[in-house]
Amino acid sequence: MRDDMPALSWCGSALRVLDQTRLPTERVFLEITTVDGLIGAIDRAVISGAPVLAIAGAYGVAVALLQAEREGWGGSGLDAAVDRIRSAGPVAVDLRWSVDRVRSLIPAGADAVVRAADAIAAEQAAAEDAIGANGADHLSGHLLAGRSRLRVLTHGGVGPPATAGRGTALGVIRELNDRGLLALVHVDETRPLLQGSRMTAWELARAGIAHAVQPDGAAASVIATGLVDAAVVGADRIAANGDVAAGAGTLAIALACADAGAPFVVAAPAGAVDAGTPNGAAIALDLRPEEEVLSGGGHRITPRASRAYNPAFEVVPARLVSALVTEYGAYEVARGHVPAAR
Amino acid sequence: MRDDMPALSWCGSALRVLDQTRLPTERVFLEITTVDGLIGAIDRAVISGAPVLAIAGAYGVAVALLQAEREGWGGSGLDAAVDRIRSAGPVAVDLRWSVDRVRSLIPAGADAVVRAADAIAAEQAAAEDAIGANGADHLSGHLLAGRSRLRVLTHGGVGPPATAGRGTALGVIRELNDRGLLALVHVDETRPLLQGSRMTAWELARAGIAHAVQPDGAAASVIATGLVDAAVVGADRIAANGDVAAGAGTLAIALACADAGAPFVVAAPAGAVDAGTPNGAAIALDLRPEEEVLSGGGHRITPRASRAYNPAFEVVPARLVSALVTEYGAYEVARGHVPAAR
Repeated sequence: MRDDMPALSWCGSALRVLDQTRLPTERVFLEITTVDGLIGAIDRAVISGAPVLAIAGAYGVAVALLQAEREGWGGSGLDAAVDRIRSAGPVAVDLRWSVDRVRSLIPAGADAVVRAADAIAAEQAAAEDAIGANGADHLSGHLLAGRSRLRVLTHGGVGPPATAGRGTALGVIRELNDRGLLALVHVDETRPLLQGSRMTAWELARAGIAHAVQPDGAAASVIATGLVDAAVVGADRIAANGDVAAGAGTLAIALACADAGAPFVVAAPAGAVDAGTPNGAAIALDLRPEEEVLSGGGHRITPRASRAYNPAFEVVPARLVSALVTEYGAYEVARGHVPAAR
Repeated sequence: MRDDMPALSWCGSALRVLDQTRLPTERVFLEITTVDGLIGAIDRAVISGAPVLAIAGAYGVAVALLQAEREGWGGSGLDAAVDRIRSAGPVAVDLRWSVDRVRSLIPAGADAVVRAADAIAAEQAAAEDAIGANGADHLSGHLLAGRSRLRVLTHGGVGPPATAGRGTALGVIRELNDRGLLALVHVDETRPLLQGSRMTAWELARAGIAHAVQPDGAAASVIATGLVDAAVVGADRIAANGDVAAGAGTLAIALACADAGAPFVVAAPAGAVDAGTPNGAAIALDLRPEEEVLSGGGHRITPRASRAYNPAFEVVPARLVSALVTEYGAYEVARGHVPAAR
């Protein structure tokens, strides 16, 4: 993949986004100029990952504002459009937060909204730098008793283009590597969208980090047999009690870590903690298209009678979360330490 | 898929096998006439699944005998060839057992070996009928307190063509369905070879059983959120202490069942229990080709620098196995009841 254009940027009067679904084969950018275009891109996982969704949502308010001007929407029409953006990607609470932050600037015009979105993007990238440092501090402090370098398991798209900067869990992994404390990464391929194979493995390779890609089903035994020292994953949302919503496959990792006594660490910006969500049970179940599971390589592999169960995320109970690492520090969630919501 | 030819049969002087890797798109039969051909078919997962491997191994002795006659091998050459068959699919202990059972008939000629292999195939099919009945008895006795029909999770290729008859776990599922006690099956797609999508889902559809195919990573949350009442899986080998070797993804299911208090049931012929394997740690680690994980749809999706970790199986500790169902009954393994090895 070429690296010369950021995954998400404001370009004249459009939001330019890298199409995640076509990686790594093609590096295609879409110009988004309508609210429908933005919401469709989120639904199709063209833009995916809570940190990058937060930035896309902020720029999306500028997209809505410019569309309202072009098409002569009234104030209530624009309000409804911004509400639609706010509700896209229903699990990613960061997106709601960023939309709420910039929508008050609508009277000041599109340029003001774009500048505020730029600021959010810069803050999010800085937060990922801090997450990396805090996560590396936490893991190296906990684990370097008998071992000089760590072996870490991760899952999903935990770095760019799903995040704003160095990555959430990938930020921690990069920082361990920069400090000479990393031996190896096991990364789940992450079905059905293969974000592990198609994105995280590419970022690891680009950073020169030794890694092994594995079927998601192998993660539990990789942990149980001691092939890794810890798991570090991302999150879509964190409830006030510390329950974590994250991609399918995360709960199995947490259960295996608990059974093996290995740390299960969640790396996410503080904005992912939602005071309005008391616990994981309060997060509405969201299903992705069945076709992602029923077909493969462009053709149907299951019988016509088959249905699919394709959850967009799942909930890891707080009792299984050894630590939540944000830009402000590491919180021992399983022991009752949950950071306050932003 | 057409159904007019069995997945595995003796045909004149060759072993005819259905190529599992090309299902469901194509129903291709291979004629195996050499020991190398048989071992290659096992290595490439053309023939896969402990129950069907046991039958293939028995017929394989006849293949070796006929090849020895054609090519003028001496007795020691034939012995070495039979040993190679015995060691193919190193986890599947049933295969060793079936080879040992028929090799004593070599002096009586190929016809005698083939008749003995026919008998093993018939016995295995009968064993699967009994496994189905015993498993349905066990689950209906344990679970029908408040619910009239069960929802069951399974994983991998647990029926034909990976088994000898009605199936191992699929035999249990079919029997529950025949008794009107089954509501729904959740089946893991089972990466990397997709035996769940490509084989089990087709058998379920053919039997008219409602089912949902899911990414392997979703299994733990399906169990945790109570979408199923129990898990029923197959096994490649069972150690004398009750530890179970099974396909990647099985341990996560067992951990989730233990955490949720749901039964985790292993359905396998008694021949899978191996007195020579004291526990799971004594089973040598076997890795499948990295390419199965690194590529998809015929092209590489991961960077050149990526390695893969692609275990052929994993070990579920006995403490997580609620019950082992064989043709002789249901054994509560986690409570210390392990059947004697055949």
